[in-house]
Amino acid sequence: MNDPHSALPEWQVSTWLNTPRPLTLQGLRGRVVLLHSFQMLCPGCVAYGLPQTERVRRAFPESDLAVIGLHTVFEHHAVMTIEALRAFIHEYRWSFPIGVDEPDGRGGPSLTMTLYGLRGTPSCLVLDRQGRVRMHHFGQIDDLVLGALLGRLIAGPSLRLDDDAALGIHADQTPTGDAVGCAPGSCGLPCDASIADARSK
Amino acid sequence: MNDPHSALPEWQVSTWLNTPRPLTLQGLRGRVVLLHSFQMLCPGCVAYGLPQTERVRRAFPESDLAVIGLHTVFEHHAVMTIEALRAFIHEYRWSFPIGVDEPDGRGGPSLTMTLYGLRGTPSCLVLDRQGRVRMHHFGQIDDLVLGALLGRLIAGPSLRLDDDAALGIHADQTPTGDAVGCAPGSCGLPCDASIADARSK
Amino acid sequence: MNDPHSALPEWQVSTWLNTPRPLTLQGLRGRVVLLHSFQMLCPGCVAYGLPQTERVRRAFPESDLAVIGLHTVFEHHAVMTIEALRAFIHEYRWSFPIGVDEPDGRGGPSLTMTLYGLRGTPSCLVLDRQGRVRMHHFGQIDDLVLGALLGRLIAGPSLRLDDDAALGIHADQTPTGDAVGCAPGSCGLPCDASIADARSK
Amino acid sequence: MNDPHSALPEWQVSTWLNTPRPLTLQGLRGRVVLLHSFQMLCPGCVAYGLPQTERVRRAFPESDLAVIGLHTVFEHHAVMTIEALRAFIHEYRWSFPIGVDEPDGRGGPSLTMTLYGLRGTPSCLVLDRQGRVRMHHFGQIDDLVLGALLGRLIAGPSLRLDDDAALGIHADQTPTGDAVGCAPGSCGLPCDASIADARSK
Repeated sequence: MNDPHSALPEWQVSTWLNTPRPLTLQGLRGRVVLLHSFQMLCPGCVAYGLPQTERVRRAFPESDLAVIGLHTVFEHHAVMTIEALRAFIHEYRWSFPIGVDEPDGRGGPSLTMTLYGLRGTPSCLVLDRQGRVRMHHFGQIDDLVLGALLGRLIAGPSLRLDDDAALGIHADQTPTGDAVGCAPGSCGLPCDASIADARSK
Repeated sequence: MNDPHSALPEWQVSTWLNTPRPLTLQGLRGRVVLLHSFQMLCPGCVAYGLPQTERVRRAFPESDLAVIGLHTVFEHHAVMTIEALRAFIHEYRWSFPIGVDEPDGRGGPSLTMTLYGLRGTPSCLVLDRQGRVRMHHFGQIDDLVLGALLGRLIAGPSLRLDDDAALGIHADQTPTGDAVGCAPGSCGLPCDASIADARSK
Repeated sequence: MNDPHSALPEWQVSTWLNTPRPLTLQGLRGRVVLLHSFQMLCPGCVAYGLPQTERVRRAFPESDLAVIGLHTVFEHHAVMTIEALRAFIHEYRWSFPIGVDEPDGRGGPSLTMTLYGLRGTPSCLVLDRQGRVRMHHFGQIDDLVLGALLGRLIAGPSLRLDDDAALGIHADQTPTGDAVGCAPGSCGLPCDASIADARSK
Repeated sequence: MNDPHSALPEWQVSTWLNTPRPLTLQGLRGRVVLLHSFQMLCPGCVAYGLPQTERVRRAFPESDLAVIGLHTVFEHHAVMTIEALRAFIHEYRWSFPIGVDEPDGRGGPSLTMTLYGLRGTPSCLVLDRQGRVRMHHFGQIDDLVLGALLGRLIAGPSLRLDDDAALGIHADQTPTGDAVGCAPGSCGLPCDASIADARSK
């Protein structure tokens, strides 16, 4: 992950829902990709992350933008099962493809979560048509700012690699840190950062 | 349930959370009671029913008003377990006592849900200091209307039994029907009324 | 205003809108009264104070609760005229009676505003059936809390004068101070407290 | 206005506020332009149009996007004066330049409103860097959709004139009609379409 402009490695998904066949980053190359990392018991994901992801899916043509959910469990593993996720998706009518991130088997953050350096949920990654990460955001992000980035990338053949500054969007900076957790303000109380150092595994 | 002024029978709760000891309607007699019936995977409960219940708990003294949640599962039994409910309560920081309604053992609505004639989730029952049902509402209810009813009942020794009309609050009428389901508007799509006739059991 | 339980003196209104005849506090005796003090160019009044007042009017029977608006101008006198107020009421469809508070003729807060010790807009006064002030609030107030107070007062013959503590509602305290202004958070920036000491006039 | 790709003619503004000098479309050529047409007594403008315009101004660099308000009065001329507008801007802290559209002198819609074929308030025009109209919208518009369009146009040298379909954003269609009024849903009641045929003047 040292070079922000290198293509993101493939995710490690054990099960796909809401799609007739497994999806790969390689297979999405050529389209802009929004990857929404969530947990079904994460209040901020339910209140704003997932509804925003659903709105994005409806606002852009699928030929331009692929919208993908990734269920990245890092806590309460025993109850955030695939069966529970299926019921959650059914009740909330999420319509975009959702991959179940591969568990690490030791009760820590799931594999892709660690691979991509995701700090917690909700997180949002945006990739350009070449598969390069153009946004990596932990927490809530404004519709206007997200829409502008997606619009720019969809119109993007004109964007040069050294053109990041020209993206010119005043997005919140993702604070750095090692703890995996829920985003500030997405819980009623400060989160239990019990899985600190997960990224260093 | 023929006489709206008769006291409500006791609930049938298998497990209590957020309280050091089991609660009974009898033990709450003398206080006004708000009973919020929900499911952890019901979108309308998560979006407005439970947050409103939490606000009510904070707005009134516990000596006047007892606020109780009742987890009334009528679908997805395999995943809305007590362990899952515990994680849900922890993540959302619900602070009021929550009882797990006794399952019927046949995959239908839980026992108290049927006993009280609850049509689905979210539902809200308000009892006066004498334990009589003064509101039975399925779906969303306005804060102003709910607050007014609670304020009236707390001030209530002056209310006579034949005084219902004088409550004078323009509440939505609960539509009658036999299906158990989620409240209109609380899901993205029309609900699957697969448990119709549950009340007639 | 020393005794919170003494009846409020009559307002001094120059013009009434939305009512076929002038209203007096004396004439409303026997009903609970909600008096909403606002200015048409006060952002907090437009965003939450006035919409809440309209919701209150619709939620309670007029025979129990009189809902009154009071246009208490303390700034921008030249443009918040009666003619402008009429257009404002028409466009926003406010349906409750609105009195135009008598100007002081010197560019300061209007007369009833000073008489009642209102600190700015939006302010809300609630009177019981005997015309005594039971709430005096500057700024935003929660629907649940306001509804509870109104419900209690409407049910209120049982409330004794020394019973305030029993009202038991956790309302925000009105901070004390001498400046007339807009409520905290109702403007985008800290308010210009240019009319400080108005209450001491 | 027959050719949507022809440059928009200059506005006719009598007075500018929030800017040290008058602005012209010609002078903004090379930047994307968002023009928000509003009235200070239009509920939909105050509730969502103007706040969205302010958010847009803060989300994009001024070097890429010029955000302009246009006070297009078509009713209540006697009270929506420049002096009143100044107080309104001060109280709401709008920070973008606002032009006062030239009145027609006969109590009808202001001159630029008619020139641009604006159907009412709030309306939103978006121009590309060449000054061509790329969106003409009456009523509420989603942040995500607006952000996407602005992002695309800012990245826009790659967009060809015949590329509209490729904009690919699922925006609401502006219904056609001759009446000038407020946008559906922006008033509490159906609007008084008393200024119908204004555009034919």
